[in-house]
Amino acid sequence: MTISKISPLAPKILVKMPPLTGVELATAASGLKYKNRDDLLLMVFSPETTIAGVFTKSTTAAISVLLTKHVVKIGQGRCLLVNAGNANAFTGVDGERSANSILSSISRVSGLPVSSIMMASTGVIGEPLDDVIINRHIDNLWNSKGTADWYQAASAIKTTDTFAKVTSQTVEFGNQTVNICGIAKGSGMIAPNMATMLGFIVTDAKIEKSLLQKILLLVNNKSFNSITVDSDTSTNDMVLAAATGASKVVISYEDSTVDKFISAFQKVMVDLAHQIVKDGEGASKFITINVTGGVSNNSAHNIAKSIANSPLVKTAIAGEDANWGRIVMAIGKAGELVKTNLITIRVGGVLVATNGKKFEGYKEYKVEKHIKSDNIIIDIDLQMQDGNATVWTCDLTHEYISINADYRS
Amino acid sequence: MTISKISPLAPKILVKMPPLTGVELATAASGLKYKNRDDLLLMVFSPETTIAGVFTKSTTAAISVLLTKHVVKIGQGRCLLVNAGNANAFTGVDGERSANSILSSISRVSGLPVSSIMMASTGVIGEPLDDVIINRHIDNLWNSKGTADWYQAASAIKTTDTFAKVTSQTVEFGNQTVNICGIAKGSGMIAPNMATMLGFIVTDAKIEKSLLQKILLLVNNKSFNSITVDSDTSTNDMVLAAATGASKVVISYEDSTVDKFISAFQKVMVDLAHQIVKDGEGASKFITINVTGGVSNNSAHNIAKSIANSPLVKTAIAGEDANWGRIVMAIGKAGELVKTNLITIRVGGVLVATNGKKFEGYKEYKVEKHIKSDNIIIDIDLQMQDGNATVWTCDLTHEYISINADYRS
Repeated sequence: MTISKISPLAPKILVKMPPLTGVELATAASGLKYKNRDDLLLMVFSPETTIAGVFTKSTTAAISVLLTKHVVKIGQGRCLLVNAGNANAFTGVDGERSANSILSSISRVSGLPVSSIMMASTGVIGEPLDDVIINRHIDNLWNSKGTADWYQAASAIKTTDTFAKVTSQTVEFGNQTVNICGIAKGSGMIAPNMATMLGFIVTDAKIEKSLLQKILLLVNNKSFNSITVDSDTSTNDMVLAAATGASKVVISYEDSTVDKFISAFQKVMVDLAHQIVKDGEGASKFITINVTGGVSNNSAHNIAKSIANSPLVKTAIAGEDANWGRIVMAIGKAGELVKTNLITIRVGGVLVATNGKKFEGYKEYKVEKHIKSDNIIIDIDLQMQDGNATVWTCDLTHEYISINADYRS
Repeated sequence: MTISKISPLAPKILVKMPPLTGVELATAASGLKYKNRDDLLLMVFSPETTIAGVFTKSTTAAISVLLTKHVVKIGQGRCLLVNAGNANAFTGVDGERSANSILSSISRVSGLPVSSIMMASTGVIGEPLDDVIINRHIDNLWNSKGTADWYQAASAIKTTDTFAKVTSQTVEFGNQTVNICGIAKGSGMIAPNMATMLGFIVTDAKIEKSLLQKILLLVNNKSFNSITVDSDTSTNDMVLAAATGASKVVISYEDSTVDKFISAFQKVMVDLAHQIVKDGEGASKFITINVTGGVSNNSAHNIAKSIANSPLVKTAIAGEDANWGRIVMAIGKAGELVKTNLITIRVGGVLVATNGKKFEGYKEYKVEKHIKSDNIIIDIDLQMQDGNATVWTCDLTHEYISINADYRS
């Protein structure tokens, strides 16, 4: 088994997380699937907290997605329970009963209305979630809120992840400080439009719910929706953003605070997204694909995604083969408007092709040297209009097959 | 290197090919890329032959695709040159010059107008095709027409293929006989909408060009467009159908001949499509995915394709893991209308899930036994309307990674 081996692309240093008032964390080990590790996370938010969310587009979405979406839309989210190891997806009425039973337990212990309690589940699809086992831990979780740190929280939500994904940003607004802390999980089934990933970002800024939702949507497109590991999309994904307001710094449309905040928020989300790719199942190389000159940002995104999802491109990079013809293939299969004789391709900054054919002075040894590194950069210039996009992915290796052929995730 | 090992799913017996008047075959070894094997195929058709074609939808299609499309559309196709080892794609004006130079050579030797000469290329993308080397063999190819058999023809167009793909059907119309012979190549980059595959089907029936085109389109959707190996789509694919008319049997809209002919034609195309999947790079299992009860055939096709293209489903099958939750994930990510609580899933005929959850009497050992075989059958019943589709694919194995990480195809 290769599951426990830490990804070679994992961050080498631990991030120091700033204090963040207005959220309390607790973790517990239910023993439901994993042994000797936490698999439950409770996040409790202060009453002033606003919550925004984005969710999987899967048509077979899990009950946790449906329930949490509802709370984000109409309710006042006050706490979130995450369980790892069982997705509680495709479990029919049994799954609904189980989720509702857990919500009731939390409501009973906390005194919060069910309509303010959110859930996220990740793990095996199709197996009923045992609410009895989870309910045994609710008292303890609630009573120990505030005792877990962000690393413990990130560790408790892992499935096939080989490392806990944590990051933060601190922004100064005059004399005041705003903190943003984020955690995420995910390694396989990662594709644009959410995949087997969960992300939770909390800030102590004060932000109206509608603005927070707008910021989350905007930034999500440039972070979690711009990564792909294997093109698969899960039943359970969600990213939640919570603004506790404890810092008293108000972020609003009207002034310049919003751009500064978005910039920091984006750093957190992009960092977490990169960490997910770097923990892509079997990943040995981190790949950045920049597409410029497309007819629209969306068109550029689709082309970048097509390259990022191509098994042939990903295996060539895994094999350190400068087989750039496969990039051409992937551009072509995207079905987006391109003019072949304008396409320029650079790999690692080295000009490979220009005006729709191999660059005459192309030096393959330079590209070969670049793709032996673990940080691959592919630049495509379509030279038509201003559309651009960046997508991140990893290579496709023997390890991916081993992990997914052997492990029921 | 694993390239020369024959796929474990390759047909065990050679098909006997019937005589087919009106087409003459010749092969040659240019030495351009491969050593000690033929890599050029010339097919020469009788003057009465009608030709139909379907082509890749890639927006970076190769020059051979553009030229042959033109001949099929407005010209009277009389001969076809296929070269293997170089796709002559993304080669700009050099590639165009090279293709035109080869067409001129053929025209000079044969006396045929350039507008009647078709080309198909398959192999590496982005490398200029050396017309000088190929032109040296044109005389010899033309003069030896009629000397090669279908197996030699199918062998000459292989790239990463581990076996030659050949099949035939013979249909009786009263006292008369119609023969259909087909060859194909392809193993990786196979996805619906044509991938790195070429298919050439010749019959001695007499069929008007417009009817032949209609039949080809119809049958192509149920054969080559219903297979996928790795979701990648190539720059060079085409399927051509030629009807020489030598049998004097006329296939027409007006009478019942057309259904009988289509049935046989479909057997040829489906057989070739299956052979391509069975030669899927690294394939160890042949997978059939039947989706019924969809809101339309197209919707059912998209769901079947989503399952067939899911790396997680394909690796689970490679690992002989009855991880059916990944099928649910793949249904969900297709984005087609489904009602989760109506979905029924069978694997190898064993009821796994019904009404949107695991079947209570589900016996996992039965599915485990089935997926140890090399012929996997997945049936999804969406239980909504009459839309249905079948898609064929193979599993995703370590061999796929080895082949594609090590070999520049």
